[in-house]
Amino acid sequence: MEHLYYAYDDFLSDTKVLTQKIAWRFDTVIAIARGGMSLAQLLGEYYDIRKVYSINTIGYNATQKLDEVKVFNIPELDHSKNVLIVDDIVDSGDTLIEVLEVLKKSYPHITFRTASLFYKKSAKIIPDWYVREADKWIDFFWSEDLKRKR
Amino acid sequence: MEHLYYAYDDFLSDTKVLTQKIAWRFDTVIAIARGGMSLAQLLGEYYDIRKVYSINTIGYNATQKLDEVKVFNIPELDHSKNVLIVDDIVDSGDTLIEVLEVLKKSYPHITFRTASLFYKKSAKIIPDWYVREADKWIDFFWSEDLKRKR
Repeated sequence: MEHLYYAYDDFLSDTKVLTQKIAWRFDTVIAIARGGMSLAQLLGEYYDIRKVYSINTIGYNATQKLDEVKVFNIPELDHSKNVLIVDDIVDSGDTLIEVLEVLKKSYPHITFRTASLFYKKSAKIIPDWYVREADKWIDFFWSEDLKRKR
Repeated sequence: MEHLYYAYDDFLSDTKVLTQKIAWRFDTVIAIARGGMSLAQLLGEYYDIRKVYSINTIGYNATQKLDEVKVFNIPELDHSKNVLIVDDIVDSGDTLIEVLEVLKKSYPHITFRTASLFYKKSAKIIPDWYVREADKWIDFFWSEDLKRKR
């Protein structure tokens, strides 16, 4: 599969685009770790939101055919009303679907919406807001730059 | 107070230096949110550690004189042994001290160490590893770049 190097400057431009797309007032940001952490930090700073949390997932083979996602480190949301869940890429969509399900079950009165930088057409869920469609393998700067740096 | 703009490239160089200083094998990274989130993401990717979590703090006035720090969203660490806690800057040190205390109380058998990009000489605690002493107000790229971007 072809690779696309996604530099910090691309990330910054796209995050700016994302802020222009998100026509919604939220009070909390949840990063799906690790992928969404830098995005969540920048959005938290931009919107002056201090409730910037993260949530973890781990994929495992439930059956030979089916991959399942376990969600853990669910943040306390007792004082939140509108929560934006962010990730770098919505690939199969399995992670985002499971995160949404777990959070909605724990907090039925909270409105959750979702945003990502990339979205794959084949995903089972479309985030409420995204910037680019991914048709290549993305080499994100947070994965690449430290390894390349001398 | 004089301001220092801290660009992504500075962050990348310093994070590289940090990886050269940290002579310790850890299995988990905890970001103190929001400040440590990008750093935690890059370190997690660099060391191929998927246990990248975050923890939250909020400062409040306990008495008229004393600021206290409340720690929340403590990650599950049942399968962790060596945990690196990261933040962008150790300023007064109050946050880091309280985070360490809460984590050590919850997980007495885990070894916790600490790393930051910046450290202020006046802080009440020295992180195990840091890169620069802060003698100016730091305008981090994650606070500045989205606001400056057109």
